[in-house]
Amino acid sequence: MTTPKRQRLSPAQRRAQLVDLGVAALADHSLEDVSVEHVAEQAGVTRALVFHYFTSKQEFHAAILDKVAQEVLEATTPDPALAPLDTLRATLGTFIDYVGRNPHVYVSLVRGESSSVPALRQSVERTRGALVGRILDLFGQLGFEGGPLLEFTVRGWLAFTEEVATRWLLDPQGVGRDHILELLAGSLPGVVLAPQLAAPDTVAQLFPEVAGLADPPPPG
Amino acid sequence: MTTPKRQRLSPAQRRAQLVDLGVAALADHSLEDVSVEHVAEQAGVTRALVFHYFTSKQEFHAAILDKVAQEVLEATTPDPALAPLDTLRATLGTFIDYVGRNPHVYVSLVRGESSSVPALRQSVERTRGALVGRILDLFGQLGFEGGPLLEFTVRGWLAFTEEVATRWLLDPQGVGRDHILELLAGSLPGVVLAPQLAAPDTVAQLFPEVAGLADPPPPG
Repeated sequence: MTTPKRQRLSPAQRRAQLVDLGVAALADHSLEDVSVEHVAEQAGVTRALVFHYFTSKQEFHAAILDKVAQEVLEATTPDPALAPLDTLRATLGTFIDYVGRNPHVYVSLVRGESSSVPALRQSVERTRGALVGRILDLFGQLGFEGGPLLEFTVRGWLAFTEEVATRWLLDPQGVGRDHILELLAGSLPGVVLAPQLAAPDTVAQLFPEVAGLADPPPPG
Repeated sequence: MTTPKRQRLSPAQRRAQLVDLGVAALADHSLEDVSVEHVAEQAGVTRALVFHYFTSKQEFHAAILDKVAQEVLEATTPDPALAPLDTLRATLGTFIDYVGRNPHVYVSLVRGESSSVPALRQSVERTRGALVGRILDLFGQLGFEGGPLLEFTVRGWLAFTEEVATRWLLDPQGVGRDHILELLAGSLPGVVLAPQLAAPDTVAQLFPEVAGLADPPPPG
């Protein structure tokens, strides 16, 4: 290689470069294993310079996480020309394909180091907050009455989605992408309509094939 | 007090006593804060004796957690005389009332120390596995075809339930117990029916009040 390893960059460019190299390292490392030394070497700078931009390894990891979250949020920006359910399906499809490119990154974000390191947990929580805000806006546009119950519901749905996505990514057990997509897309109306579905008659009337849900067991 | 502090107990009784005292301490301590010293003092034994039964504080905490989980599972045993949806509602009601008696215990189990200590995480995972197994059995009795997709769905629903319950317990925001109960009870059929609900026409036909979900936005 004749390219000079160390380039002249402004502080903002240098910081962005280090974060981008960290994000790239996620392709074959968990977030916990992205090392400051490795990134410094790739950027052709000293370890000390990295710590000039980030006061700790955790802070560096949090910046990587923020960048990934920003990419996910950009990649899943709703298309205002679509119907809400189509928007949801399109967004979830992008999301699944994005996290599916590197399942371990997503799993480590949702379940890993992030849960015990405050800076990382905050980054994950900010992303969740942004996603929940988006969905509540969508319901608002549909004339849904918002409020705490709807927010509990949407927060719960996000936990549902994370649980299903992480389990499926780690071990799909033969379930195809499109089945997961239908499950995630239909589960949002499913949980929002939960209070209606909780009435036994509703399920029995709407879905006779599962009417047994509301029937007492046969005697004996 | 004239009661002798230290009673003669068999090893099994002593172990059970220590665990019970640990469970009782959860009434005003988070699991992280249940101290071996406090429990030893209450039992009238030495700290060293506690460590004779549990090799570490974490192992003691895991035993406390297992006992709580066992109590929750017993308290929520399904009544075979009820219809499945009624069973679900009754079980969830018991669950909400149980965790509601001491919200911080439940929250610390689901989100706290348990997530970073292997023995505790395993205890929580065993409980989740038992609950998921119960629900899958219920669907099996209804003639539902089981399989990986249903298991992903039920696992996701458990995450939904934990998320909604912990948020609501920490800050109910004026939402009453019965509204949460209907949300949790209806969300299980809601997510199991998700693939059907993902079809825009289904939601539009079944719930005209939310038909907007499937409509494109007005032009302009």
